[in-house]
Amino acid sequence: MDYVAEHGGDVYSYIENKGLKPLDYSANTNPLGMPENVKKALVENIDNYGFYPDIHCRKLKQAVSVYEDTDPEYFLFGNGAADIIFRLCYALKPKAALLLAPTFSEYEQALLNVECGIEYYNLNKDSNFTVEADILDKIGGKDIVFICNPNNPTGMLTDKELLVKISEKCLNENCYVVIDECFMDFVRGHREHSFIEYLEKFENVIILKAFTKIFAMAGLRLGYCLCCNKETVSKIKKAEQPWSVSVPAQIAGIAALGNRNYLTETVRVIEKEREYLTVNLRKAGFTVFESHANFILFKAGVTDLYDRLYKRGILVRKCGNFRGLDDTYYRIAVKCREDNERLLGAVREVLDNG
Amino acid sequence: MDYVAEHGGDVYSYIENKGLKPLDYSANTNPLGMPENVKKALVENIDNYGFYPDIHCRKLKQAVSVYEDTDPEYFLFGNGAADIIFRLCYALKPKAALLLAPTFSEYEQALLNVECGIEYYNLNKDSNFTVEADILDKIGGKDIVFICNPNNPTGMLTDKELLVKISEKCLNENCYVVIDECFMDFVRGHREHSFIEYLEKFENVIILKAFTKIFAMAGLRLGYCLCCNKETVSKIKKAEQPWSVSVPAQIAGIAALGNRNYLTETVRVIEKEREYLTVNLRKAGFTVFESHANFILFKAGVTDLYDRLYKRGILVRKCGNFRGLDDTYYRIAVKCREDNERLLGAVREVLDNG
Repeated sequence: MDYVAEHGGDVYSYIENKGLKPLDYSANTNPLGMPENVKKALVENIDNYGFYPDIHCRKLKQAVSVYEDTDPEYFLFGNGAADIIFRLCYALKPKAALLLAPTFSEYEQALLNVECGIEYYNLNKDSNFTVEADILDKIGGKDIVFICNPNNPTGMLTDKELLVKISEKCLNENCYVVIDECFMDFVRGHREHSFIEYLEKFENVIILKAFTKIFAMAGLRLGYCLCCNKETVSKIKKAEQPWSVSVPAQIAGIAALGNRNYLTETVRVIEKEREYLTVNLRKAGFTVFESHANFILFKAGVTDLYDRLYKRGILVRKCGNFRGLDDTYYRIAVKCREDNERLLGAVREVLDNG
Repeated sequence: MDYVAEHGGDVYSYIENKGLKPLDYSANTNPLGMPENVKKALVENIDNYGFYPDIHCRKLKQAVSVYEDTDPEYFLFGNGAADIIFRLCYALKPKAALLLAPTFSEYEQALLNVECGIEYYNLNKDSNFTVEADILDKIGGKDIVFICNPNNPTGMLTDKELLVKISEKCLNENCYVVIDECFMDFVRGHREHSFIEYLEKFENVIILKAFTKIFAMAGLRLGYCLCCNKETVSKIKKAEQPWSVSVPAQIAGIAALGNRNYLTETVRVIEKEREYLTVNLRKAGFTVFESHANFILFKAGVTDLYDRLYKRGILVRKCGNFRGLDDTYYRIAVKCREDNERLLGAVREVLDNG
């Protein structure tokens, strides 16, 4: 598999080709950048990087459990959320899975590694890629269902009452439900949309979250999952080395959680700029889908927009390798106004001049 | 499993109990500490921690391939060597394994995760825990053999001609050989003892190495493996997320490799201090085994040395959970003179006063 083509955020290939950094709209990290107090904590603690990390992430767990208002025992940390996706597949060894299409591709990769059969719930562009009640008919016989909420690459939320029904049906079928909320904290009213309040009602539900995106620390790798079933947590933990969360990741995570204003400001900026980009991309003639997250999916009618923007120093995410999409779909991050103007300027240039 | 008891380096439980840092002889990292230029590089690059890491570790791979004088295509990097141990078990799915006893416990843990049967080659204290030719009789029917060289917790090297014979026999049996050289660079004449020169002769051999120990960056998590079979490398890569090596780990690794003097000085200090500790622990009445690494295994005749040193602010590694050892065995790191004097002082105190 060519990972360069598979994912966004590969600024390194661009730098290798062009010798300079692109304006990266292909990775969905917080445009406000890593909080300053995180950088400060990383520098202040540099003499601790020589020690093995705390395998129990004690201080971090304490801080995150306050942030999520949830029992510390429900948490398991990993080397980014992607680490936990692979690890939970190795631990739970599902034989039959249900995935959305399109959705984040690493679920499929992790499931294929354990030779799990996969069925897809095809999302429909005409209903804005919304998960609907007919998904319930697909749960029978499955061992695991992944729901990315809001979904990547569409940015759509799944209705919470439907999530409850999915979780209930799965509970009856002895089926795990992994709800990936890695982009949830970018959403207006995210506490309402999050499934965390139902965590204790469903011992088959595993919620995934990450610091990577919301705190713009993708390079540090820090993710976690929550599950009220301690046996499941312990199983997932044992599926990998004990030292998976580095010292800098633990330090950064603890520092990051102190930034409540940063989080409020993030939601405000994302909402405003998402609207700005949506309106202007529609003006440019693209089909722009509704999103509640910090990225936008659109259909451009042409397949070479990626290359044309690349030439102008801008990376976007081609969506041809998302199951259910094709090369006329693109995903872009929501960034700050100045960058967004540069993007829109380049788009107009491309449309005017080719 | 209680990971606290399973491994060295858990200073965090000590700090939780006692409120201060112990003198840690339980983790085997370089006593010279993380090189200053590594810290400098980490601080200078802090603005890059917000980006996803380079999934191909391009610059790091280039630097390490110069350091090891080996084709860059043979390398695969991970979140510490332990990450690669689990990942390669998931990738290669062995059904029957041969392990040394005693040896590093994570091989067993990783193999059990893929339900692999395990046979043990029991090392004998009377021959100083040396791997001998009769190991060849145990290879038939195995899919994978792990040889830790120098071995943890004994510090003993395996004869290179014997390693060639093991690799040949394994090649004929379609069996992988994982040679864990994570502590090799602490050994006087390590280039001679390393199996890297034979890498291209044996496509079934995978050599494991780590930055963790030799550059005292255990908290940053950086390890790698080398194998001349590209298909095997690719398989191991796909067994996990693409972003497993963080940005700080990649930066630190590149900077670390510039420290040739540091490496020479490390070997000199380790050799001198290992001798100093060995002589004095023998004087104290312990059976101290020969070691070529940066740690020493000894037998104390008492089972409460750990607790008595713990009370005096010193952590050592109890070896009761190493297969083939018991609670009268202890492993200690080789540190600098001042620390070693403190350790020996505490040992004398314990022996005099209980």
